[in-house]
Amino acid sequence: MNTKVLDAFTQEHKQLLESELRTLVEKLEAPPIIKEAMHYSLEAGGKRIRPLLVFATLAAFGKDSKMGLLAASAIEMIHTYSLIHDDLPSMDNDDLRRGKPTNHKVFGDAIAILAGDALLTYSFEVIGKIPNEMASSQTKLQLVIEMAKAAGCEGMVGGQVADMEGEGKSLTIDELEYIHIHKTGKLLRYSVIAGALLGGANPTQLENLSSFAHHLGLAFQIRDDILDLEGNPEVLGKPVGSDTANEKSTYPQLLSMEGAKEALQKHLDLAKQYLEKTGLNIKLLKEIAELIASRDH
Amino acid sequence: MNTKVLDAFTQEHKQLLESELRTLVEKLEAPPIIKEAMHYSLEAGGKRIRPLLVFATLAAFGKDSKMGLLAASAIEMIHTYSLIHDDLPSMDNDDLRRGKPTNHKVFGDAIAILAGDALLTYSFEVIGKIPNEMASSQTKLQLVIEMAKAAGCEGMVGGQVADMEGEGKSLTIDELEYIHIHKTGKLLRYSVIAGALLGGANPTQLENLSSFAHHLGLAFQIRDDILDLEGNPEVLGKPVGSDTANEKSTYPQLLSMEGAKEALQKHLDLAKQYLEKTGLNIKLLKEIAELIASRDH
Repeated sequence: MNTKVLDAFTQEHKQLLESELRTLVEKLEAPPIIKEAMHYSLEAGGKRIRPLLVFATLAAFGKDSKMGLLAASAIEMIHTYSLIHDDLPSMDNDDLRRGKPTNHKVFGDAIAILAGDALLTYSFEVIGKIPNEMASSQTKLQLVIEMAKAAGCEGMVGGQVADMEGEGKSLTIDELEYIHIHKTGKLLRYSVIAGALLGGANPTQLENLSSFAHHLGLAFQIRDDILDLEGNPEVLGKPVGSDTANEKSTYPQLLSMEGAKEALQKHLDLAKQYLEKTGLNIKLLKEIAELIASRDH
Repeated sequence: MNTKVLDAFTQEHKQLLESELRTLVEKLEAPPIIKEAMHYSLEAGGKRIRPLLVFATLAAFGKDSKMGLLAASAIEMIHTYSLIHDDLPSMDNDDLRRGKPTNHKVFGDAIAILAGDALLTYSFEVIGKIPNEMASSQTKLQLVIEMAKAAGCEGMVGGQVADMEGEGKSLTIDELEYIHIHKTGKLLRYSVIAGALLGGANPTQLENLSSFAHHLGLAFQIRDDILDLEGNPEVLGKPVGSDTANEKSTYPQLLSMEGAKEALQKHLDLAKQYLEKTGLNIKLLKEIAELIASRDH
């Protein structure tokens, strides 16, 4: 599934991103403990899917993918802050994340809350650091506004609230989709939009890429739900069946496993159809979509 | 002390601000509970000093002070998010704020954390809402960047971290100033800077207003420390002596009460000197400075 071209692209850009994230936090003039806490969670790894979407979208426009480095870093900071806050005892109360102790287990709840706040705040400053020759003030401001919408209570935060409110209840498929579209979908979509804005997309391309990312986000989430039941805990790096244990509604539960797999295929097909409509060089984005739909972790 | 002109200005702009804050949250498409939690703390009142500084700075430039409404709302959202997070059990663990139960006492810790996150995130979108005829994209982007710096770990969050780390220790005056310059000073300073950027300040005016705000912030904090010892708990709306009880270093403790009062006067004088250098219509800003240095709550 995963070709050598995407492998090399992923490898190269993950390294670039991780080095950029380190540098961005390192240069901050702030108490050492907060920088350490920010570093700790930024360096905890993960698939870096959002940054990869920024880079691959720029590549689709035939642009230097490295133009997306600051936007990708900002998005990864927002994703990381959301994990730190979600893991807190008063939220999901998770002790481990990707096999490492969660931020608050290492630094305490207060610093974990503040490290999340600092990452979220810094992400907007990081967008402002994009050099003028890569993006006009107008484009950077648009990146700021769209990022705030994707991350705020009309986006990720709203999805998290709905997710918490839905626990222990049996949800309809519409309620489940609301949660996923907001909790994970909006920031995934923003990653593509950010690449498109930096790549100089026209309105039609922007619309098709937005629809691509919408369906990609749903495919991502359905795959997540399937893996929670059928995944290999060793490859996954976490126990399976946690959704059932946490009384969370999932696609397989609402649609049956077969129905969930059909829905996954449907969203993957739609994602690829919208991609075709853009007239761009979509090779990498298509491979990322296929990878997301078939990933084992 | 407080003249009728400043009284009327304060009254009018507080109403405008509070109505704007309500409208801004009301129009969000988000789960009702998170909007309610955001409203709850935004409506809890307070002196609205930061918004007033935005408005009064615009007035100093002879501009319509209402041009600052969205920037002032964004700043008040950031101030409010910081209070919500600071009050959490894992931070200051306060049950009451301005005589009302704190956000987490009403909505629970998880929603309080998310309401803070949502307010912080929304504040950047709100800056983006400033109409183009009032500010160019470049100015709005500058407002975003400066706001992130003032609120993040090089500003307010850094100050909060240093404050937490300093509890129970005896600090030097430099360490105490670091805390205050960052924890409260940077956002107060940004309020003036935001008004100045919207008002079309030249670099010299910007520099003088920045120095004015720096000294104003220190005066504000020294007055706070003095009130914690000499204030009237009924007027103050909170018990006195809490700094001592919480083993916090204060100006009166480090400098004696007389020394603290001298330092307050020194910073007020410096603030006014920088104000005079701007060549602007500084009447309101001067009155606000005098009010901050002599306030009883």
